[in-house]
Amino acid sequence: MSFNTFGHMFRVTTFGESHGVAIGCVVDGCPPNLRFTIEEVQAALDRRRPGQSRFTTQRREPDEVKVLSGTLPHPEGGLVTTGTPIALLIENVDQRSKDYADIAGAYRPGHADFTYDIKYGIRDHRGGGRSSARETATRVAAGAIAAKVLPGVTVRGAVVRIGKIEIDRSRWDWDEVGNNPFFCPDPGTVPLFEEYLDGIRKAGSSVGAVVELVAEGVPPGLGAPLYAKLDGDLAAALMGINAAKGVEIGEGFNAARLTGEQNADEMRLGNEGRPHFLANHAGGILGGISTGAPIVARFAVKPTSSILTPRQTVDRSGHETEIFTKGRHDPCVGIRAVPVGEAMVWCVLADHLLRHRGQVGQSPAWPFPQG
Amino acid sequence: MSFNTFGHMFRVTTFGESHGVAIGCVVDGCPPNLRFTIEEVQAALDRRRPGQSRFTTQRREPDEVKVLSGTLPHPEGGLVTTGTPIALLIENVDQRSKDYADIAGAYRPGHADFTYDIKYGIRDHRGGGRSSARETATRVAAGAIAAKVLPGVTVRGAVVRIGKIEIDRSRWDWDEVGNNPFFCPDPGTVPLFEEYLDGIRKAGSSVGAVVELVAEGVPPGLGAPLYAKLDGDLAAALMGINAAKGVEIGEGFNAARLTGEQNADEMRLGNEGRPHFLANHAGGILGGISTGAPIVARFAVKPTSSILTPRQTVDRSGHETEIFTKGRHDPCVGIRAVPVGEAMVWCVLADHLLRHRGQVGQSPAWPFPQG
Amino acid sequence: MSFNTFGHMFRVTTFGESHGVAIGCVVDGCPPNLRFTIEEVQAALDRRRPGQSRFTTQRREPDEVKVLSGTLPHPEGGLVTTGTPIALLIENVDQRSKDYADIAGAYRPGHADFTYDIKYGIRDHRGGGRSSARETATRVAAGAIAAKVLPGVTVRGAVVRIGKIEIDRSRWDWDEVGNNPFFCPDPGTVPLFEEYLDGIRKAGSSVGAVVELVAEGVPPGLGAPLYAKLDGDLAAALMGINAAKGVEIGEGFNAARLTGEQNADEMRLGNEGRPHFLANHAGGILGGISTGAPIVARFAVKPTSSILTPRQTVDRSGHETEIFTKGRHDPCVGIRAVPVGEAMVWCVLADHLLRHRGQVGQSPAWPFPQG
Amino acid sequence: MSFNTFGHMFRVTTFGESHGVAIGCVVDGCPPNLRFTIEEVQAALDRRRPGQSRFTTQRREPDEVKVLSGTLPHPEGGLVTTGTPIALLIENVDQRSKDYADIAGAYRPGHADFTYDIKYGIRDHRGGGRSSARETATRVAAGAIAAKVLPGVTVRGAVVRIGKIEIDRSRWDWDEVGNNPFFCPDPGTVPLFEEYLDGIRKAGSSVGAVVELVAEGVPPGLGAPLYAKLDGDLAAALMGINAAKGVEIGEGFNAARLTGEQNADEMRLGNEGRPHFLANHAGGILGGISTGAPIVARFAVKPTSSILTPRQTVDRSGHETEIFTKGRHDPCVGIRAVPVGEAMVWCVLADHLLRHRGQVGQSPAWPFPQG
Repeated sequence: MSFNTFGHMFRVTTFGESHGVAIGCVVDGCPPNLRFTIEEVQAALDRRRPGQSRFTTQRREPDEVKVLSGTLPHPEGGLVTTGTPIALLIENVDQRSKDYADIAGAYRPGHADFTYDIKYGIRDHRGGGRSSARETATRVAAGAIAAKVLPGVTVRGAVVRIGKIEIDRSRWDWDEVGNNPFFCPDPGTVPLFEEYLDGIRKAGSSVGAVVELVAEGVPPGLGAPLYAKLDGDLAAALMGINAAKGVEIGEGFNAARLTGEQNADEMRLGNEGRPHFLANHAGGILGGISTGAPIVARFAVKPTSSILTPRQTVDRSGHETEIFTKGRHDPCVGIRAVPVGEAMVWCVLADHLLRHRGQVGQSPAWPFPQG
Repeated sequence: MSFNTFGHMFRVTTFGESHGVAIGCVVDGCPPNLRFTIEEVQAALDRRRPGQSRFTTQRREPDEVKVLSGTLPHPEGGLVTTGTPIALLIENVDQRSKDYADIAGAYRPGHADFTYDIKYGIRDHRGGGRSSARETATRVAAGAIAAKVLPGVTVRGAVVRIGKIEIDRSRWDWDEVGNNPFFCPDPGTVPLFEEYLDGIRKAGSSVGAVVELVAEGVPPGLGAPLYAKLDGDLAAALMGINAAKGVEIGEGFNAARLTGEQNADEMRLGNEGRPHFLANHAGGILGGISTGAPIVARFAVKPTSSILTPRQTVDRSGHETEIFTKGRHDPCVGIRAVPVGEAMVWCVLADHLLRHRGQVGQSPAWPFPQG
Repeated sequence: MSFNTFGHMFRVTTFGESHGVAIGCVVDGCPPNLRFTIEEVQAALDRRRPGQSRFTTQRREPDEVKVLSGTLPHPEGGLVTTGTPIALLIENVDQRSKDYADIAGAYRPGHADFTYDIKYGIRDHRGGGRSSARETATRVAAGAIAAKVLPGVTVRGAVVRIGKIEIDRSRWDWDEVGNNPFFCPDPGTVPLFEEYLDGIRKAGSSVGAVVELVAEGVPPGLGAPLYAKLDGDLAAALMGINAAKGVEIGEGFNAARLTGEQNADEMRLGNEGRPHFLANHAGGILGGISTGAPIVARFAVKPTSSILTPRQTVDRSGHETEIFTKGRHDPCVGIRAVPVGEAMVWCVLADHLLRHRGQVGQSPAWPFPQG
Repeated sequence: MSFNTFGHMFRVTTFGESHGVAIGCVVDGCPPNLRFTIEEVQAALDRRRPGQSRFTTQRREPDEVKVLSGTLPHPEGGLVTTGTPIALLIENVDQRSKDYADIAGAYRPGHADFTYDIKYGIRDHRGGGRSSARETATRVAAGAIAAKVLPGVTVRGAVVRIGKIEIDRSRWDWDEVGNNPFFCPDPGTVPLFEEYLDGIRKAGSSVGAVVELVAEGVPPGLGAPLYAKLDGDLAAALMGINAAKGVEIGEGFNAARLTGEQNADEMRLGNEGRPHFLANHAGGILGGISTGAPIVARFAVKPTSSILTPRQTVDRSGHETEIFTKGRHDPCVGIRAVPVGEAMVWCVLADHLLRHRGQVGQSPAWPFPQG
C-alpha cells in the first residue's frame, strides 16, 4: 500500500509541496557499499532545473540537494551507502506564492485543483502542491542513486515530438541531446522546435510532447509475469509523471497495426554464442521480463495547463467564473520531463534487479555458455 | 511487494498455468455484505471464453468457476460476502499438451519462452504457462466481484481498431458491442473486421488491436497524487494484460499534438449546481484523481505471436533453428482482451474506492450542495 | 497491505473457512528449481492433524493436500518449483456444522464471534470461520515449501509448559518430542502432562500452554533494523497464530530482571576463526538481525475457549444468555500449535533470506575468512 | 515490502542515524483536515528526551522538530493536515562521535555492531547508527500525529518492572506517572526504583524493565483475522522497539497457566444495552479484532548493553579483544521506551482505523441500538 512511495525493494518515498519549506525523498532498500558523490546527484538535478533557457519556466531554484542519512564518507572521497535509508532534502527558496493568490478559489482547467479539493476537502493552492512539477526533482535525485545499483546500464531520454513536429529518427544522435534546450536527438529538428516553441511561448500558450527513453545494457531476466511485469511497472512509473497521458513499450500503439509476421523479433546466435534478436519490436521486454535487447519506452505529455487565454471554470464557492494563469510556467512541460523519465526508469530497473536477486538468488545471466 | 497480486485494499492474487490442474484467484479485502451469484461470475467468464466464434482459439474450456471461501448463502438466494478472502477456482479440462511437445526447446518469437528460461532456469513449456491468455480468466472472475463494490458504476469495453482498420467513432453504439464477435461498437465496421480477420486467419497469420474502456458513474475523488495515481494504476493494470504494448488515458498520445487551449476541459455548473466539464480530454482523471467525468482508457494489443509462417529462432541447447506454431490460437488476441480490460478497470476502481474511504473516512461526494 | 497474506518476498496468502468447501493457500515468490514431494508436505500436515490422540479434537480430517500450480514433475521424481505461484488446496470433508447450530446467535466468550459480527456485520458461525484452528493447516503446508528455501537450517518446536506444569529443561531431548502426544522434549514431564490433561479433558475444561521454537543453522545477517526486524516479524507471525497471547525471543520477559552483565553474550573466536557467542541470551538476534546462534522464540497459547461449563454472554439480538460448547475441541490447543509455530518460523526465515539476497546481492556469510 | 516503513494505510517511514545530520520521518496516508500544533508534537518528544533526570543518558538533544510538508496553517492557529505526506525533521546537534572512536572495530556485546557488519559489510559505528535509541524520537513525533486520527482514544504507558522490582498494581494511579522520572504508576514503588537504579548507575551497570501500555476508548472492530491481527501488528510494532525481547497482550504468558474457565471474559449488557465484558483477560482483542474493552499490552526491554564492566568480544579484523563502554548511556533504557511504546500503539491503531474504514466502508460501531 502506498500513496507516496514507489518501488518494492528499492523504495522511494517523496514528500513536499511546491511552495512549502522543502521537498525531499527517502530511498529505502538501497544496497550497501555503493559509492556516489553529491556532485553526481546535483548534476542530475541540474539537467532538470528550470530557468536554463527561455523554453522552461523562469522560476529560479538552485535545487541544492543535501544527504541527511544512509551514507558514510568514503575514504577515497565521496560517499558510500550503508544499507540504511538515504534521505535527500532540497529546500525551497523561490516561493513566490503571491502569483497564486488570486487563483486560490477558482479551479484551473487541466490542473488537479478540483480533484484535490473534492478528494481531501482542503488543498495547498500554491503552485499545485504535490502535483507541481517541482516534486519531480526528488525523483531525479533518487534516480541518481538508483543508477549506482546498475553498473553497465545506461538510461537515456530524448524528446521525439513537440506538438505537431516529430523528429526524423534517421538522424538520431544521442550526442546531440545535450547540445540543445529540447533534449532533441535530431539536430535538423532543433530549429523547427525553436521557432515553433517561441511562437507558443509568446502567445502565452503551451503544447504537448512525446519523450522516448532507452535503457541499454539491461541484463535479460528482470521483471516477472503478470502483476510485476517490467513493462507494467514502467507504465505505472511513467504515467505517474505529471501531465503524462500515455505510455508505450517498443512498437507500442503501432503494434496494433502490425501482423504477427511483421512484429516477430527473430533470434540468432551472435558473438560468443550469445542469443540476440534481429529486431526489437518488443522494446526489450517479453512476458514482462527483459530480453537483453534495449528497453524502449515512450510517454506522452499533455500541454501545460497554465495558459494566458481565459478559460471558463467554477470556483470553490460554487460559482461560474473565468481564469487565466499569470505564473511562470513551461510552454512545453514535456521538455523537463526527460530527466524525470530517465530517473523513473533507473528506479524501476534498480527495484527489479533487487527483486530478481531476491527470488532467484543471483543476478540474471545470459543463458548459454560464452566463449 | 507482489509478483502475482494486484491491488492494495482490494487485492487479487492469481495462480495457475494454462495446462496445469487448475487456475484461480484469491480476492482479499472485499467488503462484507455484498451479494452476488455464481451465475454473474460465470456470465462474465462466458464473455471471455474462447471458441465462441471462428475468430478466437478453438480450445474448448467450459471455464466453470467454483467459489471456495469467503461467502455465505444469502437467505434470498445467491451468495453474500463475509469480508474474508474469496477463493475462486477454475479447473483446466482441455489440456492438449501434445501440441506443444515439439516446441519445448525452441523459443517462440514474441513469447515469454526465452525470458522465463533465462530468468528462472526452468519453464512450463505447455501453452505459455503463466503467460497464457488462459490466466486472464481468473481476472475476469475477480472483476465480477469487484463490480459489486461499485454500485452505480458501469465499465464497458470495445475494440476500436484491428490491424489497419479503425472504427468510425461517429457511429459508436454500445448496444452493438454484444451483437458481433469483435466487441465492435460500430456496426458499419463489423463486416470489414470480418473479412479482414478471415484473411488473417486463413493465412495462419495474426494481427493487433486497440481496446477502449469507458467507466461511467465513477465518483470524483478516487485516486491519489503521484504514486497512487488512478491513471498510473490503470496503466499498470492494462499493461499487465498479456500482449499489451501501450496504454493511454483520455487524449493519450494525441495530447502531445495539442495546445493548452485545445486540451483544456472547461467547467460549468450543471444540473443541481453540480460542476461538470465541457470536454473530457483528460479522460476523467486530473492529477491522478477522478473528476467525475467518464474515465476513458485505451490499450494496444500486439498481434498473436503464434503464427504458421516459420520464423528464425534459437533453442535451449544453444542452437539456431526455425519454428512455427501449430496450436489453436486467436488470430487477434485483442478481441478476447476486452472483458479482461473491463475486469482490470473494475478491480482498480474497487481498490481505489476502498483506499479513498480508508484515508478520507467517507466515500467521495460532489463538492457543492445539490438541490 | 494485506489482510490474509504474510511475508514480503516469500508470500503466503491463505483462504478458506473451517466448514466451507476447502481451505488453501497460494505461495508466491518461491524461488525456482527447488525440489519437493507432496509426501513431504503431507507429512508436515499429518503432524498437526487432529484426532491423533485423546488430547486433541476428535474431528477427523484427512487433510489431503493437492498442488494446483507452480510446479513441474521433476525427472527424478517429485516436483520442482518453477518460480510461479504455488497453490495448495485441502478440501474439507468432516463439516459437522450441526454442532454449531444452536450457538449461531450467542457470542462464545474468548472466541472471535463478537468481534467478527461487530466488524463485518456478518459471520460464518460454523466452527469459527477464518479463526478456526483449521486454517493453520494451510500455514503448515506453506511452511513445508519454505523449508526448501533454507537448506542446512532446522526448525523444531516443543511444548515447554501446559497450565501450571513446566518441563525440566535439564532433561531436554529433541528426540523425545515425537515420542509423545504433547511434543514434549522432557520424558520426565510426559506422565505429568498426561495425568493433568486427562483431568482437564474429563472436566470439559481446557488449559493454556507455552511453545518453544528453535531454529539452528540460520546464517548470520538475516533481518533488518527497526521495521523489518527478524524478531519483529517473528513476533507478528507467532502472535498471528490462533489463541497466541505472548511472544518472546531469547531471554524474553526474563531479560527485564537481568543486569547488563548477566545478559551480555560475550564473543570469542572458535573453529576456523569463526566468531561465536559464549551465551545466547539474545536468542540469536541482535538489532533485528540474526547472529548465527540458534534463534529461540516462545509463544504463549491461551486455554481453548470452548468449554463445557456454562458462561454468561450476550447474543446477536442484544439479549443476555448463557452458553457452553458441545463441539469437538482440543483440551489444550497449544499442543497442535507446535507444527504451526514451526511453519511460521520457516516462512519468516525464507522471506528474510530472499529479502537479504535482494538488498545485499548475495546470501549472508560469516565475516572472517575460514581456514 | 519495507525495511524502514511501518503501517499500511497510515504509513511511517523513518530515516537517520544517531550521529548523522538529522533524523526524521515521513507520515504518509494521514487523513486530511486534522488539526495539530508543533507544540503538541514537541511535547511528546520532550517526554522521551534524554537528560531529564540522572536515570537517563546525559546526552543533550533539544530534539526540535520541524514540519516540512503536508500541512497548511489553520486559520485559527496551528496546522491542518492536507492528506499529503507529512515530513518531520529533527536535526542532530550533540554528535559527540569521539566517544566512539576506540570502539569502532570491536563488537559490543548486545549491540547490533556484529550483525550490521556481517549483513551489510559496512556500518556507521557512531552511536549505534540506525539501532540507536535516538531513532525512536521520530516514532514519537509520528505517534503525535497518529493520535489526531483517533479522537476519543487515550493511550498511556507505564513502567511496571525494573529489574527485580515489580510495582504493586493495587496502587496503580495514572496521575502518578508524570510525577516521577520512571513513568511509574505506583508511588510506593518510586523510592525503591530510585535507590535500586542509583546503585546500578553508580556501578556502571544497567538493568531491564517491563512497560505496560493501555489504550482506552478504542472502538470495537479494529483489526482483522490472521495476518492483519491487531495483536499481531502490535507485537511487531513493540518488538520493533530497540532492546525489546518480549511482547504480550492481556494475560499474555500468564494465560498459559489458566484454565478456560479462569480465562473466560463473560459478557453482559450494560449502559444503553451496550455489551460489555465482565473481565479483560483478552486485553481487548479477540480473533485479532478489538472488543471495545481497553487494549492492554506489555513489552520487556533488556538491560542497556553498554556497561562499564569489560566484556570479551572480537573485532572486525578477526581478533579476540575486550570492551567496555564509556559513552553516555541510560542505566535502564526501558524508562525512555514508555513514550516510544505509546507512539507505536497510536500508529498501529491509526493504521487499523483507516484500514477498517476502507474495507468496511464506515467507522466501527457498537452492535446494538443504544438508547
